[in-house]
Amino acid sequence: MSADLTSTVSTFVAELNWSDVPEPARAAARRTAANVIGLSVGAAHSAAAEAVLGAAADLGQQGGAQVLGRAETLTAPWAALVNGLTAHVEDFDDTYLSCILHPGAPIVPAALAAAELVGADGETLMTGVVAGVEVASRLGDSLWPSHFDRGWHVTATTGPIGAACAAARVLGLDAARTAHAIAIAATQAAGHTEQLGSMTKSFQVGRAAATGVEAALLAEQGFTGPVEPLAGRRGMSALMATEVDWAPMADLGHRWLVESNALKPYSCGIVSHPVIDAGRRLRAGGLEPAHVGSVELQVHPRVLDVMGVTEPVDGLRSKFSVYHCFAVGLLRGAGGPPEFSDTAAVDPEITDIRGRVTVALDPALAADACRAVVTTTDGRTVELTVDHATGSIDAPMSDEELRAKVVTLAGRLDNPDRLWDVARRLDDIGSAEDLFAVAG
Amino acid sequence: MSADLTSTVSTFVAELNWSDVPEPARAAARRTAANVIGLSVGAAHSAAAEAVLGAAADLGQQGGAQVLGRAETLTAPWAALVNGLTAHVEDFDDTYLSCILHPGAPIVPAALAAAELVGADGETLMTGVVAGVEVASRLGDSLWPSHFDRGWHVTATTGPIGAACAAARVLGLDAARTAHAIAIAATQAAGHTEQLGSMTKSFQVGRAAATGVEAALLAEQGFTGPVEPLAGRRGMSALMATEVDWAPMADLGHRWLVESNALKPYSCGIVSHPVIDAGRRLRAGGLEPAHVGSVELQVHPRVLDVMGVTEPVDGLRSKFSVYHCFAVGLLRGAGGPPEFSDTAAVDPEITDIRGRVTVALDPALAADACRAVVTTTDGRTVELTVDHATGSIDAPMSDEELRAKVVTLAGRLDNPDRLWDVARRLDDIGSAEDLFAVAG
Repeated sequence: MSADLTSTVSTFVAELNWSDVPEPARAAARRTAANVIGLSVGAAHSAAAEAVLGAAADLGQQGGAQVLGRAETLTAPWAALVNGLTAHVEDFDDTYLSCILHPGAPIVPAALAAAELVGADGETLMTGVVAGVEVASRLGDSLWPSHFDRGWHVTATTGPIGAACAAARVLGLDAARTAHAIAIAATQAAGHTEQLGSMTKSFQVGRAAATGVEAALLAEQGFTGPVEPLAGRRGMSALMATEVDWAPMADLGHRWLVESNALKPYSCGIVSHPVIDAGRRLRAGGLEPAHVGSVELQVHPRVLDVMGVTEPVDGLRSKFSVYHCFAVGLLRGAGGPPEFSDTAAVDPEITDIRGRVTVALDPALAADACRAVVTTTDGRTVELTVDHATGSIDAPMSDEELRAKVVTLAGRLDNPDRLWDVARRLDDIGSAEDLFAVAG
Repeated sequence: MSADLTSTVSTFVAELNWSDVPEPARAAARRTAANVIGLSVGAAHSAAAEAVLGAAADLGQQGGAQVLGRAETLTAPWAALVNGLTAHVEDFDDTYLSCILHPGAPIVPAALAAAELVGADGETLMTGVVAGVEVASRLGDSLWPSHFDRGWHVTATTGPIGAACAAARVLGLDAARTAHAIAIAATQAAGHTEQLGSMTKSFQVGRAAATGVEAALLAEQGFTGPVEPLAGRRGMSALMATEVDWAPMADLGHRWLVESNALKPYSCGIVSHPVIDAGRRLRAGGLEPAHVGSVELQVHPRVLDVMGVTEPVDGLRSKFSVYHCFAVGLLRGAGGPPEFSDTAAVDPEITDIRGRVTVALDPALAADACRAVVTTTDGRTVELTVDHATGSIDAPMSDEELRAKVVTLAGRLDNPDRLWDVARRLDDIGSAEDLFAVAG
């Protein structure tokens, strides 16, 4: 599979049409896009977004491309950057759990910026989204697990390639130019998990979207790279993973991985979602926080790789604390942006429960499962197992739950329901303008 | 040294003044900058530059920052991108051989774009250049050799951090914000040697310059990253090198590595420079190309890592062919841009000699040395050893040779000598405008 890998991928991207995409994949792509748009509108005034908008002004990036949820328009790459950052900053987006990839945030904004540049219609835009998700998901799977285990932020590393494929398809590049767009994006693949819990985590995802747009436009202008940027001897996979298996690429166009992209009901690292469920269910079962003596959480071994922050001092860091996740589930019965705010991170009630939690790793547990063993102050033991976290592919958010999420996120708008009506079926729009008319 | 590494680096950068820089380091920095400016002017109309300029127009990147050697002005990051690309595209720039880093191309354009943004004077600009070179060179040394051996393009990976330091210093950021600029740049560190021999090789160096400018402006706006992006558990060094030794960082501000940055007399991969010398000396010694039966080149083992292209089909690829390098040295007595053009790559006389060359690796040879053993058609053996390649730190280009190089590169300008007069002492200019007045 590694011979001609990039050629195979670029041919798939260039030749994909909306009519090739089966209805379940279309529906999944629509949900992915609607979720991203709600998130981008919702976080449009976050501190990270404000700082990037400030730098964009200093760097002369005023332009004609829309920033979702704001009045400002920027150049195409910077609009993609901001929209990608805001889609990801709350860690509330979507997850292809197989390789812990969040494909929506880098890919949808890149497709949108490209569509705006050339006036593409909704079907073309969504064809780009599907192409990007299919490629990035398989690239992540091919490099899994050594790429992730080394500490690469999979969304930031495979995102530029997915975003480049999306933008190339929207621009209508042929297979040869799409391959060069992939090369230009692949050699910029970057992003360290050291950056989790800081503004840069979402920046590198936004930057992936911008890279994709730039790569596609450069390739369109005749800019060229090497023949095999992904599988070559000194290419992306050789440098960024110790074991590579390209088998996942084999069913490109036959199986649709976008259908396995799950939307997040909680705004924090995905691997802690079952822990929030555990807290919520214990609360629903009547466990009083005041009666909690100690809690042992039994979790999948990867949880502490990314969620090991014991005493988060601010909201962004609390998203990477499995201890905080359990505490807000139990105390608030929720796990949305308010539960991961700067205020919540230092709330005395929450820090008290956090301090009572210990974690035990259990390799036998699935990534979307956990067990909680609570010892109460009066000496009882309460046990609870979560088999599949809410929002996982086995317990997905319903369309109605997604609508509620998007409408809540878009609460700042005059008419959030109108945004939902457009965002939920992006393939029906005549051009990106139809979306921007209801997202500003 | 790894505790507080980023803090140590950012404090050095923020506190460095031109008056702290000893005269030999100042002189070396001036030469580095003048060389870059000549190269950027010389390659301003190369095919890679034209393609990037085309994409810049499509992406709304018209702005107020000068592209060296052209009439166009772009936004600050894109001006830095183009100037960095054109400084590097001919593989004719400079080399800190200790870790095979070409610091000038990512760092000088970033400092220049930042200086233009804030109207900084020449001494501030050059202080930024020195800060960037000192940091990037030590970062490369700290990751050497596993980072290089894995296949990372050191100039593209350490370049963004050097460029961010340069831009941060020019903007006058304090140590805390400089540290965040380093974090923003570090997590974008990227660039594969698979891309050598294609346009993307110089793009990723130009992109490093742009990343540095953007990182500094983002940090100035309050954008933040993690505390230890370089040495942290999941940070740059952990992900991009298997062995790391931060000892080279210890003498930051005490020893000046910019003095070890050598300017290239030949426009190709540095490790082949002794081979061009060998060809030139054999030619000077009277060896007739027609009498060459076969040639064995004995070279440092790293030569074939990057210079192993046996039958380059175009100019960019010929820069990574040790076989081509020997042939042009022997046949043309030169190794400048004309010898690595698309025409030269397929010249029958050159391809004939290339086909007679074999390479033997000798670990005992230094990286700037080689031996050539020629067997003539009439059965004689001619041997020649190059101890230190022309342009290496032990046989540096003279100021007069540098002047000739810059003036030749700037041949398109009305008055190339005027460019040299300004470029050779950038610390004397009142603002970047003084340079642009003679470089357009």
